[in-house]
Amino acid sequence: MLQFQCDYLQGCAPEILRRLENTNSQCFVGYGEDPVSASAIAKIRSFVGSDDADVWFVTGGTQANQLVIDAMLQPYEGVVSTTAGHVNVHESGAIEFTGHKVMTLPAHDGKMCAGELKKMMQTFYADGTYEHQVFPGMVYISHPTEYGTLYTKDELTALSQVCREYHLPLYVDGARLGYGLASRHTDVTVRDLYQLVDAFYIGGTKCGSLFGEAIVFTKNNTPRRFFTRRKQHGALLAKGWLLGIQFDELFTDGLYMKLAANAIDQAEYMKKEIAAKGYDFLLDSPTNQQFVILDNEKMHQLEKDVIFSVWEPVDETHTAVRFATSWATTKDQVDQLLALL
Amino acid sequence: MLQFQCDYLQGCAPEILRRLENTNSQCFVGYGEDPVSASAIAKIRSFVGSDDADVWFVTGGTQANQLVIDAMLQPYEGVVSTTAGHVNVHESGAIEFTGHKVMTLPAHDGKMCAGELKKMMQTFYADGTYEHQVFPGMVYISHPTEYGTLYTKDELTALSQVCREYHLPLYVDGARLGYGLASRHTDVTVRDLYQLVDAFYIGGTKCGSLFGEAIVFTKNNTPRRFFTRRKQHGALLAKGWLLGIQFDELFTDGLYMKLAANAIDQAEYMKKEIAAKGYDFLLDSPTNQQFVILDNEKMHQLEKDVIFSVWEPVDETHTAVRFATSWATTKDQVDQLLALL
Amino acid sequence: MLQFQCDYLQGCAPEILRRLENTNSQCFVGYGEDPVSASAIAKIRSFVGSDDADVWFVTGGTQANQLVIDAMLQPYEGVVSTTAGHVNVHESGAIEFTGHKVMTLPAHDGKMCAGELKKMMQTFYADGTYEHQVFPGMVYISHPTEYGTLYTKDELTALSQVCREYHLPLYVDGARLGYGLASRHTDVTVRDLYQLVDAFYIGGTKCGSLFGEAIVFTKNNTPRRFFTRRKQHGALLAKGWLLGIQFDELFTDGLYMKLAANAIDQAEYMKKEIAAKGYDFLLDSPTNQQFVILDNEKMHQLEKDVIFSVWEPVDETHTAVRFATSWATTKDQVDQLLALL
Amino acid sequence: MLQFQCDYLQGCAPEILRRLENTNSQCFVGYGEDPVSASAIAKIRSFVGSDDADVWFVTGGTQANQLVIDAMLQPYEGVVSTTAGHVNVHESGAIEFTGHKVMTLPAHDGKMCAGELKKMMQTFYADGTYEHQVFPGMVYISHPTEYGTLYTKDELTALSQVCREYHLPLYVDGARLGYGLASRHTDVTVRDLYQLVDAFYIGGTKCGSLFGEAIVFTKNNTPRRFFTRRKQHGALLAKGWLLGIQFDELFTDGLYMKLAANAIDQAEYMKKEIAAKGYDFLLDSPTNQQFVILDNEKMHQLEKDVIFSVWEPVDETHTAVRFATSWATTKDQVDQLLALL
Repeated sequence: MLQFQCDYLQGCAPEILRRLENTNSQCFVGYGEDPVSASAIAKIRSFVGSDDADVWFVTGGTQANQLVIDAMLQPYEGVVSTTAGHVNVHESGAIEFTGHKVMTLPAHDGKMCAGELKKMMQTFYADGTYEHQVFPGMVYISHPTEYGTLYTKDELTALSQVCREYHLPLYVDGARLGYGLASRHTDVTVRDLYQLVDAFYIGGTKCGSLFGEAIVFTKNNTPRRFFTRRKQHGALLAKGWLLGIQFDELFTDGLYMKLAANAIDQAEYMKKEIAAKGYDFLLDSPTNQQFVILDNEKMHQLEKDVIFSVWEPVDETHTAVRFATSWATTKDQVDQLLALL
Repeated sequence: MLQFQCDYLQGCAPEILRRLENTNSQCFVGYGEDPVSASAIAKIRSFVGSDDADVWFVTGGTQANQLVIDAMLQPYEGVVSTTAGHVNVHESGAIEFTGHKVMTLPAHDGKMCAGELKKMMQTFYADGTYEHQVFPGMVYISHPTEYGTLYTKDELTALSQVCREYHLPLYVDGARLGYGLASRHTDVTVRDLYQLVDAFYIGGTKCGSLFGEAIVFTKNNTPRRFFTRRKQHGALLAKGWLLGIQFDELFTDGLYMKLAANAIDQAEYMKKEIAAKGYDFLLDSPTNQQFVILDNEKMHQLEKDVIFSVWEPVDETHTAVRFATSWATTKDQVDQLLALL
Repeated sequence: MLQFQCDYLQGCAPEILRRLENTNSQCFVGYGEDPVSASAIAKIRSFVGSDDADVWFVTGGTQANQLVIDAMLQPYEGVVSTTAGHVNVHESGAIEFTGHKVMTLPAHDGKMCAGELKKMMQTFYADGTYEHQVFPGMVYISHPTEYGTLYTKDELTALSQVCREYHLPLYVDGARLGYGLASRHTDVTVRDLYQLVDAFYIGGTKCGSLFGEAIVFTKNNTPRRFFTRRKQHGALLAKGWLLGIQFDELFTDGLYMKLAANAIDQAEYMKKEIAAKGYDFLLDSPTNQQFVILDNEKMHQLEKDVIFSVWEPVDETHTAVRFATSWATTKDQVDQLLALL
Repeated sequence: MLQFQCDYLQGCAPEILRRLENTNSQCFVGYGEDPVSASAIAKIRSFVGSDDADVWFVTGGTQANQLVIDAMLQPYEGVVSTTAGHVNVHESGAIEFTGHKVMTLPAHDGKMCAGELKKMMQTFYADGTYEHQVFPGMVYISHPTEYGTLYTKDELTALSQVCREYHLPLYVDGARLGYGLASRHTDVTVRDLYQLVDAFYIGGTKCGSLFGEAIVFTKNNTPRRFFTRRKQHGALLAKGWLLGIQFDELFTDGLYMKLAANAIDQAEYMKKEIAAKGYDFLLDSPTNQQFVILDNEKMHQLEKDVIFSVWEPVDETHTAVRFATSWATTKDQVDQLLALL
């Protein structure tokens, strides 16, 4: 059975496994206060281009979002997301669980529009009853988005400006950040991102590690007692060096970007060939998720040999499905998929 | 200065004040366990037509909504509301504060559509990832709605059926319930309401009491330890008999409905006369809130003599404003307003 | 039946009822933004001796405690209370409901010891694992305490100093503040209190109003967006002027202290006479709550004619019971009680 | 530097690493719905002796405690723990964060006394004001305790009986369960535990896995929508098979108990030899944590060569310190420690 349903189907880059082996009998202090974690943090600082980057590791994306958003918001504030945002749809209410409203704006191919954000803020403060409402307290976007799309540097800059104007921290869910940075169709570097946003996380789980995400605060703006907040959230790994090891390897010799590049190569190849076969796409994705429109008969036939995500109905007889490549996808796998299409 | 900005501008029905005076030096046990509260509950049971009605008093509407919704939902569930629902807009995130998402459907003149609710539920359970989402756990509507509109008995029945099909308790915010029941254009009685819904509250604050709302559970479905939940929410009044006294008076000799009828009489008179002057309305409201479209110049001129709610812009040069009548509004006040229009 | 079980058995001072009547048909803006509330706040500022006092009204004591503590704490902090503190025992977990731990110290006749607080803080920060614990974030005491006792000025000063040393806001639950200030055995004035603490509330419910407590922040230290927090907690009364009216009356012509003085007069009289009859007291209370030790037979006999609080067993055959006087207690009532003892 | 400060200093059993390698390029479905997780669950069912055992994996102990306790409690309930309980002391308020009070009983060498629990429950329900309090809703104990001690079967049975009498689920924190089961001084088997309690977790992090705990519900009593609750808590690992692999290995060929036995062997050896040197112990621990009383000078000298936990002062000149062995501790390491003592 071919599997293209997501980008977290397999273990991790072999370099990580090897390092786990080599360090397995070594003793480390717990809770991330070990030297390997320190080394990983130093490498991430170099990657993002700032010695000020404050880096923290957690085990998963929902955990990262819940922790960062809860810690950055005041209790009377909510987080602004698109309707398609992962925090709004696929986290079982993890944000509301911590007391905060997810306030939504429309998603345009998954993206938030700076103008609409500005309008929302203007309308909010123009309303005489705003003290009876939830204060928009920060902005959540994903890059790449849930639809595989990417903000341009201009779009991100525009969002950043509105956020600064209204003192809204801008937070980026980077579950697939590697794939965004490795895209052939992006003008946003990780250093741009670092400059333009207040916090983001560098996704490991979907980009080559066994698990783990690296949260980055960019402006000496780490919420107070963040170590304790992490524990309070149940998000502090006892053997923190396991996260350190993984990110230390990912950020040695450019491994993170190399892994990402493979996913992009396979996605671009798949995209070109699928288009050549005459299929339409739900939208033009420049990253590792490709949304292809299949007629339903074809889709059901394909389900016998391939696992993929059924995304959304397009019309009575057609459905958009998602094929995701990853750091581990091989050309051979893509070729098998293409042969079946 | 004429005041039409809302329906909670003045104290209470004189009968209530008199009763407060007459009982002022009497000793009562606290927390609502007094005989006057028991009497009020008995009268409310008679009003709603069921001896099974379980009635609890709290001091305000947001408090009632927060308490009931939090107590009726499982922790992994959210409440479905229209986008215009008070809990979604004007309660400072009181629902999310208790850990629950407010899940929205479109508002049609303030109302939820049963068909859209059914569609939402079908889509939810058809989505293979629903366990990663917030479960829709109950439905919140207001009657009258925030736009003064009313559900017909058919509409309410349809909603009720969808709710039962999906095991969603249906809860009605009755902040202005009296005005809804007293409307000349409704086929919904309080007994209908009682049969069709799982919980509602009978608004006192906006309908003749100093403060207070009577929460009614209709199906022996009171959440466990509701007394304690009320305390835990900071919503248990020490001198509970003050609420008992107010509702006992409101439900003696039909006072509640008489007070409501006055608001409706004044609103209908106002509506007819304003229409006669050629003004348009944002929508056709059958209750005590009337939404009139003014050109902006006229609106600013009127602001010198009248306080009213600026509701929403209609176009570049026109704005919808709200004039609310109440149990205490006099024909003389309406006439003054009409003279100014 | 004589009733001495608590101090919230009756309505309110007649002055308040009269004012409610006189203003009943007057229109007010809601949510406490009315001129009467402003007047009440001005009078409270004068009472506490500071123009900087920031005053907010809520409807009850648990609500006040929950709101103030939640708003003053950081999310990773807990509140330090004695084991006997109302927030620790009798609020159904209202503090934990908002996410905060109640951290306890022993109660000495209901009071917290400054030395023990200091020791707690030293131990906390000396523990290498403190980042894995709850940070003590503020201190809650009641004055009078749940046992009717009072802090001396020295004791309060000592507590205040430890609090300042460790940056712990000191908050005083003043449900019975009037009775504490009116005690014949106190050297703490309200102005002392104001200087020594960071927040407190002036109890209305137990001291002459129908309901209502006046929260006072003393050091320009009101939590941000406190208005909205109040709404979010379901603690914002729509007709806020009702609270304004009550406190405006209580702080006109010294009414608040006059009402308190009555409770103290009756309590002192009761205490002297009960002692003269040879009864022992659980402790020496200088305020309106008297804790008398009865043999159980006597207690059960008394229960036929008097309602009182059964406080705690003293030994196999004796029980401490509480008789509470209030602003409304008459000498005649006390005499009847004395006759029965 | 010798390290005896805790039992989570090193990676994992080599069998686990090897399995991670062998499966690294295999594709799995996420969220624990893979066949390896199913296999691990089957093996755990066999280990605990019941096909009904409902098993769920999470990544850490605080996470397990927070999730289970929050999911098993009603919102108005608290969890009863000893004062020494991990949830009461070392989890940064993770329980209160979810809205629940931790209600404490004294710790007797770390253990809860069934008689004291029963007394607590009797007192609670005998108090006329219990509806104003937090309801004790479940019981949390650890086995081994934070002091390395173990409940006897009689003690556990007595606790279990009180719990059943009062309908309190009994939950056991088994962070070090392996070491408890492998102790030479216990009469409690895992099957006993399974029969006597309502939920527990089998610790992996401290007992041979890289990370991970296996939560077991014993009586078809899994909280509703536990999958979703886990997600809502940020506690659902995307690559769930990583937990499955680890527990599948731990429960293959008795590995879990073999690893535990090593820690016990080393601890017993250490204990015997340290006693032979004339040192006293804080208490008699039958598991892998040994609490030795050192004079402070000796302690400071030892700190140059060994990392250990400074537990608590015993008197002016002596301190109890903790030496923990683990699945990975070697006799050579213990010998080095002994040589230094």
